[in-house]
Amino acid sequence: MAATAPLPRAPVSSPATRTVLWPARSNLRAAAVPPAGTLGLRRRQPFPAVSVTPASAQSTPPALAVDPEVEALLDSVKWDAKGLAVAIAQNVDTGAILMQGFANREALAATISTRKATFYSRSRSSLWTKGETSMNFINVHDIFLDCDRDSIIYLGTPDGPTCHTGAETCYYSSVYDALQGSKSSQERQVATTLYSLEDTISKRKEEIVTEGSGKPSWTKKLLLDNQLLCSKIREEAGELIQTLLENEDRSRTASEMGDLLYHAMVLLSVKDVKMEEVLEVLRKRFSQSGVEEKASRKKS
Amino acid sequence: MAATAPLPRAPVSSPATRTVLWPARSNLRAAAVPPAGTLGLRRRQPFPAVSVTPASAQSTPPALAVDPEVEALLDSVKWDAKGLAVAIAQNVDTGAILMQGFANREALAATISTRKATFYSRSRSSLWTKGETSMNFINVHDIFLDCDRDSIIYLGTPDGPTCHTGAETCYYSSVYDALQGSKSSQERQVATTLYSLEDTISKRKEEIVTEGSGKPSWTKKLLLDNQLLCSKIREEAGELIQTLLENEDRSRTASEMGDLLYHAMVLLSVKDVKMEEVLEVLRKRFSQSGVEEKASRKKS
Repeated sequence: MAATAPLPRAPVSSPATRTVLWPARSNLRAAAVPPAGTLGLRRRQPFPAVSVTPASAQSTPPALAVDPEVEALLDSVKWDAKGLAVAIAQNVDTGAILMQGFANREALAATISTRKATFYSRSRSSLWTKGETSMNFINVHDIFLDCDRDSIIYLGTPDGPTCHTGAETCYYSSVYDALQGSKSSQERQVATTLYSLEDTISKRKEEIVTEGSGKPSWTKKLLLDNQLLCSKIREEAGELIQTLLENEDRSRTASEMGDLLYHAMVLLSVKDVKMEEVLEVLRKRFSQSGVEEKASRKKS
Repeated sequence: MAATAPLPRAPVSSPATRTVLWPARSNLRAAAVPPAGTLGLRRRQPFPAVSVTPASAQSTPPALAVDPEVEALLDSVKWDAKGLAVAIAQNVDTGAILMQGFANREALAATISTRKATFYSRSRSSLWTKGETSMNFINVHDIFLDCDRDSIIYLGTPDGPTCHTGAETCYYSSVYDALQGSKSSQERQVATTLYSLEDTISKRKEEIVTEGSGKPSWTKKLLLDNQLLCSKIREEAGELIQTLLENEDRSRTASEMGDLLYHAMVLLSVKDVKMEEVLEVLRKRFSQSGVEEKASRKKS
């Protein structure tokens, strides 16, 4: 952004903004609760352990004292016969589903308060905070319940790979790959469109190293020619702009934006920058006031 | 993209590509299986009903005859004591978690074969294909199992709103909103960073209508001034390019890409185009050969 450009004002609706605004009301006695609004943005930070008495999923009374508003919210969840609800951890920046476990009342209370994704382990019959052993915590920015109030999303940023295997997420086995007898069926991470495209660009980059020029591809050509890549990005930006200035139809705008995004992602690949990092920048920028953001830029 | 620009070659790793490559092996007798690779891209298409005999989750033998490879895959899933596994439907383009249900053996077999997200309803003790009543099917592009093989992701495109309430996804109740006593706590869809930003831009656009100039904001200024917006997009594209040509550091590239993405998204908002549409364009472009893609462009 140009030094003279005014900064976008802090919006009020992003999850990260909610994090900033939300006053820590819960008072889980055992947890040393870090200040609200800071946890989500820190990475690989030591976590003050929550010393929760292991309890069965259905245990009453709850092992933790929580405030009445949190109690009321916990009461509103439709826990199943075993006192559990499905809890899904999702990466707030990429949208990747990181893992799925179950939460009981105490696990959700702990997550609300500590903002570290916490589950109920059915095999060990105890609470567990994801990362308590690996230090790869999932820092929770927001929590959502579904329409039936029996399914929970923990929306957060992972400190590192979520899966115990070291994989980024626990979902890396494609059913269709397996049925096709693909040898790489154990290795392909679940990926939505943007990240499939990022993976593809990344593979072309690897192929340049492993196979030389090999099979021709437009992506490889761009990866090998900075001048061409830059002129294409300029051209695509110009064509996107043109759809506005010349009042071209919506589908043209979507198409030109797709072109611009793809070419800009090739540049990211050349620079070894992940879309996740770009989205982190945007999240942080839109979760603080322009003043704070300007200040933090000057420092960096 | 310029008319003269070479087209990116079809990659082999995107979910949509897998859809194209995967030969329909399953032979669910009752289902009229549409050709593989076409379903995922069609919208609001009538669905040939799968006439599955209602069966309890644990029923054996399965009501459907599937081929040995599918049988082996179904055997590899760790079904719980009730014969179920958690099944999460996720939007392949946006990454939004649409809904969560449970699948039994038959539900997963039906989903593999028909490519319509199918679940086991615990309340009705029967299979149900999402959309069989509302016609808002979820067209499945890929299916993933987690490391424990007891949790499933159906990655697909929804034909319309997924929730029975008419909401886009079933997750629109933020726990922190509720604890803050926010009146809008029933109305905020779960959103990852890119879509939070899109929502924010969209809110600024609404504010211009409802409040006039009101509280000043950079986004509003851009929304109201096409020339300014276009010159900013050009400028940000130039600054992104500069990070490559002048070998600036990675963090600078991430920051400039964030700026470009934000400004381009304001243009999308002016043109009433959603990021989801842009990603759909990219998915389709990268799931077919350059030749097919070129042909389809000429038609449109």
